[in-house]
Amino acid sequence: MPPLTPKALIFDVFGTCVDWRGSIIAEGRALDRRWGTAVDWPALADAWRGRYQPALDEVRSGRRPWTILDVLHRESLDALAPSFGLDKLDEAQRDHLNRVWHRLTPWPDTVAGLTRLKRRFVIGPLSNGNFALLTNMAKHVGLPWDVNLSCELYRAYKPKPETYLGAAGLLGLRPTETMLVAAHYSDLQAARACGLLTAYVHRPREFGDKPKNDLPADPTVDVVANDFEDLATKLGCC
Amino acid sequence: MPPLTPKALIFDVFGTCVDWRGSIIAEGRALDRRWGTAVDWPALADAWRGRYQPALDEVRSGRRPWTILDVLHRESLDALAPSFGLDKLDEAQRDHLNRVWHRLTPWPDTVAGLTRLKRRFVIGPLSNGNFALLTNMAKHVGLPWDVNLSCELYRAYKPKPETYLGAAGLLGLRPTETMLVAAHYSDLQAARACGLLTAYVHRPREFGDKPKNDLPADPTVDVVANDFEDLATKLGCC
Repeated sequence: MPPLTPKALIFDVFGTCVDWRGSIIAEGRALDRRWGTAVDWPALADAWRGRYQPALDEVRSGRRPWTILDVLHRESLDALAPSFGLDKLDEAQRDHLNRVWHRLTPWPDTVAGLTRLKRRFVIGPLSNGNFALLTNMAKHVGLPWDVNLSCELYRAYKPKPETYLGAAGLLGLRPTETMLVAAHYSDLQAARACGLLTAYVHRPREFGDKPKNDLPADPTVDVVANDFEDLATKLGCC
Repeated sequence: MPPLTPKALIFDVFGTCVDWRGSIIAEGRALDRRWGTAVDWPALADAWRGRYQPALDEVRSGRRPWTILDVLHRESLDALAPSFGLDKLDEAQRDHLNRVWHRLTPWPDTVAGLTRLKRRFVIGPLSNGNFALLTNMAKHVGLPWDVNLSCELYRAYKPKPETYLGAAGLLGLRPTETMLVAAHYSDLQAARACGLLTAYVHRPREFGDKPKNDLPADPTVDVVANDFEDLATKLGCC
């Protein structure tokens, strides 16, 4: 295998950079104390995320025109609210809860690993999260991105090819100079089909105690890393 | 006047953040030594920049489809090369020289001022420079942007309203929550017409010894600052 020479690393975010499930549970429990609610937050987090791919599919299929993730998240929340004892929340509370996705917290190695990777590569998120969501998240928890490559810029959701090729194109790079980093094998395979380099990062706690084993025994990726610090080391960052 | 409460500051780049003229002259003289050329670099810098607005006007008017600035810069360079003793440059040399616009150096206060402003606001360039140009420039000289809001994202050049409104929209902000920072009054007036807040920064050396006085005696802007450090102080940044 020739040495890997990416110029930019682009990152999946939900699950790869941040712990969406743990963040929703932690913030939700604090909201319970403030709002006097008593929500099953692990169940709500799973149900909310469970509506994610079906909602994106409506847009990917063309059945629905381009719609940003904040809107899709809010529709899912409104649909779930009655079953979770949240139907009495007013508009401001619902908006605040919906924007928990702007305040997700990183895995313990994320910021340190990105800081090392940033010294050598251009780094940015390639996420289905809308541009403002990713901007606010980075500002909130200190993700040191060089650029924001949100799928909103291409008006298409991963794994559509125009997202991977759009990110490389904006950066003025060939696909082979661009590496997708993700904790989801299907995302990486779609990027690889577009010619990008690929790095799988293990995130065994993405779904809490529920096991996560989406990496085949013989995966077709360029790098497999245990976390972002390991990735930085494997890519030659000091 | 009510207190200014922008959430994001977006910046003109050429002339406002970086010294395009001084950078081209300095790098050009180094290239003379390497290439054995003897170019009048101040004159070339002025002539190259002189072709900037006419080239953008072809796109703004719709006479020409969307074309990124790297391509327009290269066409201008190729047109000027024979008059400046550069007609013998090969393709690699022309490409390298054209990308001097990716390597422009900041004014002395730029990085320190942006670093202070970044603590309080989302900061990003809103420039006619293409996305890769702005990304590479930031990486090259350490401009600490949160996001890149290049006009390439809207496929329109300033002062088209869709550029100012597009940047605020991507950030999920109202125009009145977004402040344009520029050393050019016309840019600020176009942003103001879209509802944005505005900050004029004096850059008296943008054109070298040629005086620059584009700020009216009674300007309609929200802030006037001597440089980015002064701007940070005036916007309450420690």
